[in-house]
Amino acid sequence: MFKIIANKVKARRAEIVTRKGKVQTPCFMPIATKAAVKTITSDEVRQLAPDMILSNTYHLMLRPGQEEMERLGGLHAFMDWDKPILTDSGGFQVFSLAKKRKITPEGVEFNSHIEKNKYFLSPEDSIKIQMNIGSDIMMVLDECVKLPAEKKYLEKSIKLTTFWAKRCKDYFDKVCVDKQEAERPLLFGIVQGGLEKDLRLESAVSLKQIGFDGYAIGGLAVGETEQEMCSVLKYLCSELPEDKSRYLMGVGYPHQIVEAVKAGVDMFDCVIPTREARHGRLYFWNSEFIEKQRNILELDFLSKEFYTTLNIHNEENKFDLSPINSESKFPELRRYSRAYLRHLFVSEDPLAQRLSTLNNLEFYLGLMGKIRLDICSSM
Amino acid sequence: MFKIIANKVKARRAEIVTRKGKVQTPCFMPIATKAAVKTITSDEVRQLAPDMILSNTYHLMLRPGQEEMERLGGLHAFMDWDKPILTDSGGFQVFSLAKKRKITPEGVEFNSHIEKNKYFLSPEDSIKIQMNIGSDIMMVLDECVKLPAEKKYLEKSIKLTTFWAKRCKDYFDKVCVDKQEAERPLLFGIVQGGLEKDLRLESAVSLKQIGFDGYAIGGLAVGETEQEMCSVLKYLCSELPEDKSRYLMGVGYPHQIVEAVKAGVDMFDCVIPTREARHGRLYFWNSEFIEKQRNILELDFLSKEFYTTLNIHNEENKFDLSPINSESKFPELRRYSRAYLRHLFVSEDPLAQRLSTLNNLEFYLGLMGKIRLDICSSM
Repeated sequence: MFKIIANKVKARRAEIVTRKGKVQTPCFMPIATKAAVKTITSDEVRQLAPDMILSNTYHLMLRPGQEEMERLGGLHAFMDWDKPILTDSGGFQVFSLAKKRKITPEGVEFNSHIEKNKYFLSPEDSIKIQMNIGSDIMMVLDECVKLPAEKKYLEKSIKLTTFWAKRCKDYFDKVCVDKQEAERPLLFGIVQGGLEKDLRLESAVSLKQIGFDGYAIGGLAVGETEQEMCSVLKYLCSELPEDKSRYLMGVGYPHQIVEAVKAGVDMFDCVIPTREARHGRLYFWNSEFIEKQRNILELDFLSKEFYTTLNIHNEENKFDLSPINSESKFPELRRYSRAYLRHLFVSEDPLAQRLSTLNNLEFYLGLMGKIRLDICSSM
Repeated sequence: MFKIIANKVKARRAEIVTRKGKVQTPCFMPIATKAAVKTITSDEVRQLAPDMILSNTYHLMLRPGQEEMERLGGLHAFMDWDKPILTDSGGFQVFSLAKKRKITPEGVEFNSHIEKNKYFLSPEDSIKIQMNIGSDIMMVLDECVKLPAEKKYLEKSIKLTTFWAKRCKDYFDKVCVDKQEAERPLLFGIVQGGLEKDLRLESAVSLKQIGFDGYAIGGLAVGETEQEMCSVLKYLCSELPEDKSRYLMGVGYPHQIVEAVKAGVDMFDCVIPTREARHGRLYFWNSEFIEKQRNILELDFLSKEFYTTLNIHNEENKFDLSPINSESKFPELRRYSRAYLRHLFVSEDPLAQRLSTLNNLEFYLGLMGKIRLDICSSM
């Protein structure tokens, strides 16, 4: 299920074998929050060529709804995507978006942020919904504690997260008992524990004992410094099994991804490329870096020198007739000027968000491609 | 410049020769209000294959601005479109969108609806701006009277419109004096006069005396009945020169276009297909009508039986797994289900508007294609 192809420092070039095909790692998963990568078609996602995308259980359970999702033939058919899909457990949005949360060992009760209806999500519910969605990699339900939090609360919380993880695993095994290996989805545990090393390690050890197909690192990039985040990744990756994939949830900026790969992380997802695109912030390679054919893993700690960003709203772009991105595989990014893209943003034409989304996802997926090459090339 | 290829009833199959290529008529021009057909790329417009598009002088003079437009190399280069572009004079939006209008024989003073800056638009200004934009077919500045209006006011107004038309023509001729015939844009007059037959005819006669490359009919579809509109078209088309194109501005629904073609109109533009698309109303052929291979010009007066519309928001579409449009040339409209399109609207994903825009423009342009065929086929 997870085969290491190459190692560099602690960076790993590997592949995850899912029932819907292989995922080459390190990988970045574009986010199809509400059953779509916002503003673009599945055909465009296919052109961007990620091996896997991510969708959000919380949003899908509200709309179209979990039973509706099943009746609609599952997420793959619904959104016209036949490669792997990873789903989160719904937990993160319950703890960040939903209203009136009430946590008990049984699960979490909450009101939807849309129509205020009451819902209840137990660990078993979360797995059941992810099954209905047709997820290929599922996540366990975890408590996402808002930081800063008292250590006592965190201690209690990781115990709950471990308890829920075990229930998810038991339910998952029960449901999958008749499934052939090639048809079985994968289930990942999620390490929590804030910035407390002992709790993080305790969380990792407990999850390893239960045994998962991969291990996610949750609760990072929530306000701590980049240095603090990297330090957690370092000791955690040493503790996590070498032969299972490691997934850093919700991270991050390009230089953070590079640093996390160096620490031994294999999988990433993040709203940054798509959300910032919709606000007119574009990501590009630093052409000097590319021309020098430098190995991206040999950059200084948290160095940003391999990329640049552009705020298209800036006045200086008003008459910039150079292409949005002369290196893009998308003709529309080569043909339209930056001045035109700026004009589309000023005019509030949704085409602006679409073009920027293509640009940023192409950059992020290109970055992962370069990372994979650079891990192998210097061995 | 305008060659009649075939006649049926009063319907004409013709072509307009512009400096950027030929336009087969009857034609429908998709509207690129702010230098873009909202939500779609120029490549997609090219796939839709209209011979000409329309853009709005008023919007372009505010953003990016008329001098900016020139500095940006004109509208064709800016929006990546090299076929003909027709521009309106700016008058219609000045009279419908702008604030604090003051009309004098000299022109019209107004405040922008965006930043409240004061502008002045004379007939000469309008032509000058359209030249800067790079328009291939320009419209004269006219007064667009809000109906109902007193006949006395209308009388005065068409005199002003004629006076402005003459000034536009004089200025246009002056600017074009050195231009070779093949490089010269075209200039159209605009007949006004509300529902007053004598004023409409007077307006038409005065404009003919000035002499234009084509004649537009303005001030219709502004609240009068369809019957009233068709009656104006009938007597006006008899009065307008046979060898010049006739353009019904801002019209309309598919059955209105068919009726106008039967009265002798050659050109159309309208926000309906694109605006309604963005609100989730989709246009389709009535398949029974198509299967019977009926001639569209032989339909009953104002008959709608050749098309259907669908409000995608309706609950009944929630589980409709049939394609958005199985006959479409766009793979995304064949691959995605109506249930999915509805979900995209509910999720407020701009992709919803884009898919619907493609569907409706494909219908409208297909309609014009069928009209052109049907004029010829029964001769």
